[in-house]
Amino acid sequence: MSGPPNDGNNWGMVKLSGSARTHQAVGDVGEHGLLQLIAERFGRFKAPGVLVSIGDDAAVLKHIGPGAVLSADMLVEGVDFDFAWATPSDVGAKAAAANLSDVAAMGAKPRCLMLSLGLRTRDHVADVLALMTALARVGRTFGAPLVGGDLSRVDGPMIVSVTVVGEGQLRALLRRQHARLGDVVLVSGSLGGAAAGLALLRQGQRAPRSFLARQLRPRPQVALGLALARSGLVTSAADISDGLAKDALHLVPPHLGVELVREALPQMPGLGRVASALGADPYTWALTGGEDFELVVATRQRDVPRLKRVAARVGETLTAVGRVVKRPGLSLQGGPIPRGGFDHFGG
Amino acid sequence: MSGPPNDGNNWGMVKLSGSARTHQAVGDVGEHGLLQLIAERFGRFKAPGVLVSIGDDAAVLKHIGPGAVLSADMLVEGVDFDFAWATPSDVGAKAAAANLSDVAAMGAKPRCLMLSLGLRTRDHVADVLALMTALARVGRTFGAPLVGGDLSRVDGPMIVSVTVVGEGQLRALLRRQHARLGDVVLVSGSLGGAAAGLALLRQGQRAPRSFLARQLRPRPQVALGLALARSGLVTSAADISDGLAKDALHLVPPHLGVELVREALPQMPGLGRVASALGADPYTWALTGGEDFELVVATRQRDVPRLKRVAARVGETLTAVGRVVKRPGLSLQGGPIPRGGFDHFGG
Repeated sequence: MSGPPNDGNNWGMVKLSGSARTHQAVGDVGEHGLLQLIAERFGRFKAPGVLVSIGDDAAVLKHIGPGAVLSADMLVEGVDFDFAWATPSDVGAKAAAANLSDVAAMGAKPRCLMLSLGLRTRDHVADVLALMTALARVGRTFGAPLVGGDLSRVDGPMIVSVTVVGEGQLRALLRRQHARLGDVVLVSGSLGGAAAGLALLRQGQRAPRSFLARQLRPRPQVALGLALARSGLVTSAADISDGLAKDALHLVPPHLGVELVREALPQMPGLGRVASALGADPYTWALTGGEDFELVVATRQRDVPRLKRVAARVGETLTAVGRVVKRPGLSLQGGPIPRGGFDHFGG
Repeated sequence: MSGPPNDGNNWGMVKLSGSARTHQAVGDVGEHGLLQLIAERFGRFKAPGVLVSIGDDAAVLKHIGPGAVLSADMLVEGVDFDFAWATPSDVGAKAAAANLSDVAAMGAKPRCLMLSLGLRTRDHVADVLALMTALARVGRTFGAPLVGGDLSRVDGPMIVSVTVVGEGQLRALLRRQHARLGDVVLVSGSLGGAAAGLALLRQGQRAPRSFLARQLRPRPQVALGLALARSGLVTSAADISDGLAKDALHLVPPHLGVELVREALPQMPGLGRVASALGADPYTWALTGGEDFELVVATRQRDVPRLKRVAARVGETLTAVGRVVKRPGLSLQGGPIPRGGFDHFGG
């Protein structure tokens, strides 16, 4: 270990005083100064069930459960986000959404977010606060205030490491790998928009805005996840972060597979136009693009109409896209399976 | 955002199959291969209260509370640890201990750990698993199994980002800034050992082992924290991660201060010898070295003997080192206050 390392730099160590110096770099205000600004800006929100927020060795929430749900997502600059086309606010909002989506996929209610940031001394304080403000805002929107975290210096890419805590009813939680042979596979909303948005941003394009928003400001399906869990009609569920081709397989145990129907995929409206403008294949985006943060669920054939009504009551749609089959792995009716799936380590 | 980013690379996506290939680099086995190894090694442990561990969108624990306690610590290679003298196991064990220490300082019971790792393709799989194994072992020792997390690629220093969840009785939780004028300030165990260990390691020395262990394998004061919380005798508490000079001030509200007595500091046995061998000042190590992960607490004068007996019953000692005074900030009887305190951003 090198410096006096784990120097308890939880945000709890901050005493409130001093005024904001947001125009400076992180290295100018120092860790203590930045913690002060964070406490001033984020320590004051009162949220139901949050007994201690930023300002102690740890945050304290009133009891979580009966099922306490925990998930984590670490975003790394240059790998998971790029400031060439995403603002700090975009990054914060997306970090929150990606984490909340995991809670949604369990059919649980988000309760709080924890954020650990790895920053460079050259990073601007205003950018750090913008990232945190967007993250905290998205969290609050879905009932999960930002309650604590950590700061560390990184001589490398910026690190945005989030942990989300949710709560749910134990028997109602939506699990992976629990679908049964013959179950129908459905997806919420529409697919391919986030991948199209990414392709547009990479080419420096700033329209159509709806596609950019799908990439930069994804919306976690929290209300839908809760409604599906309460319905008791879902045999298995996951969120679509890697792309349907990969995430649909999370629904089934290893000895079963999923057969998708290419023509059934609910493409985001206008996807075909963006694809042909960029010379891309909309089906590939919809199948493997990922980051749509929709839910993919399985249900018994006879429950499909009821489940669609459950979704409609929270203003969402579910589209049948395939079925659980005997043959393990993914099959696709209507076309070859595009090579896809992101592997952080290129394995 | 660049790749298909938040690719849901929670450990939940893993299907168990294949055999361990621990002699390879992370880039050889790929993300999926590494996740497989992680699930094989860490997904099988059954722990009371853990309903879903590695293997779904999120981990699920039976209800946490009445007070759910959350803390986070992010360790960065080159800043918070250095593989020049710490093994991957050391880093994992310390990451767990640093987080558990925050729960101990709240007087709460650890329940689980979440781990997000930022790795390079060149990192050895065996080292990653060794780090995780040590972290999981320390967690289990204190009742907090590793239940989930995330992997991401980092083209920079290795990132070890941990979140710990604990539970406690709401009224009994040990808070910061709640000490009152005239309270006695006590510390558990002994001080300066971790700083001495760091100084030895930096000079390439491998003895005395007790000091190296204090730096590399710190022990969180979980049982003591729980006993102190149950006693109802502690007015305020924090853990010593930044050094007593900084952490003692966490006990008091901003309008009060702490006066420490230099000669009262419980130095780790043999600290003087190591200090004189290295030409260092043992008092500086004890006051500002940090990372001892002892607890610093405040109590009313009349409760000091009872509190010491509470500590003795869990095999620990408490030593009175000072008092809460009117003058804000830190005062020191018996010598000048050494400059200290680690600031990640050098502010």
